[in-house]
Amino acid sequence: MAKELHHPDRDQIDLSAVLEALSEPTRRDIVLHLLSDGEAPCGAFDGYAPKTNLSYHLARLREAGVTRTRVVGPYRLISVRVDDLAARFPGLLDAIADAARSAKPAAEGVG
Amino acid sequence: MAKELHHPDRDQIDLSAVLEALSEPTRRDIVLHLLSDGEAPCGAFDGYAPKTNLSYHLARLREAGVTRTRVVGPYRLISVRVDDLAARFPGLLDAIADAARSAKPAAEGVG
Repeated sequence: MAKELHHPDRDQIDLSAVLEALSEPTRRDIVLHLLSDGEAPCGAFDGYAPKTNLSYHLARLREAGVTRTRVVGPYRLISVRVDDLAARFPGLLDAIADAARSAKPAAEGVG
Repeated sequence: MAKELHHPDRDQIDLSAVLEALSEPTRRDIVLHLLSDGEAPCGAFDGYAPKTNLSYHLARLREAGVTRTRVVGPYRLISVRVDDLAARFPGLLDAIADAARSAKPAAEGVG
């Protein structure tokens, strides 16, 4: 059996936790990547932060209810909980993603 | 001359700072109050937090560019920088305020 990682239920997703999770630029970059490209393995973010930091950031996003992590054999596949966030806080994820895109320098090279 | 408090210029308002400022429930309550009732003196928030914490929260909001503080004689009048935030990050403040209102218990009694 795959190890089950903790994810908050939709109605337990907490606004403070979501805003706090998305207040960090690396975590916003991860979310923008996932929104653009869909579900991705952890390895897709190797260039985003040193490995321990990356594990931490991915755990913070998951525990806040921003992302879902599926364990498939040796892989962890990450996706944004778009439907859950839209149901819980309509418009919030879109507004933050738009703001994050507009706040990034035009010649952004991460990833 | 009134002492001038630091406020970031509109184009220096930082997304991480705004999200971090609004990730704290007391600070969101202050912003919701100001959005509802308009500019208010510090004293309007006396019930929101102990006095030192309140000063801290108000400073965090101001330094993040979420609020403006006008010093008028012995008073400090606080308002939300609605136009600056709407210009810098369209839709963001509205989305967070809507989420904050929906996330609050129905029988909320602060203030």
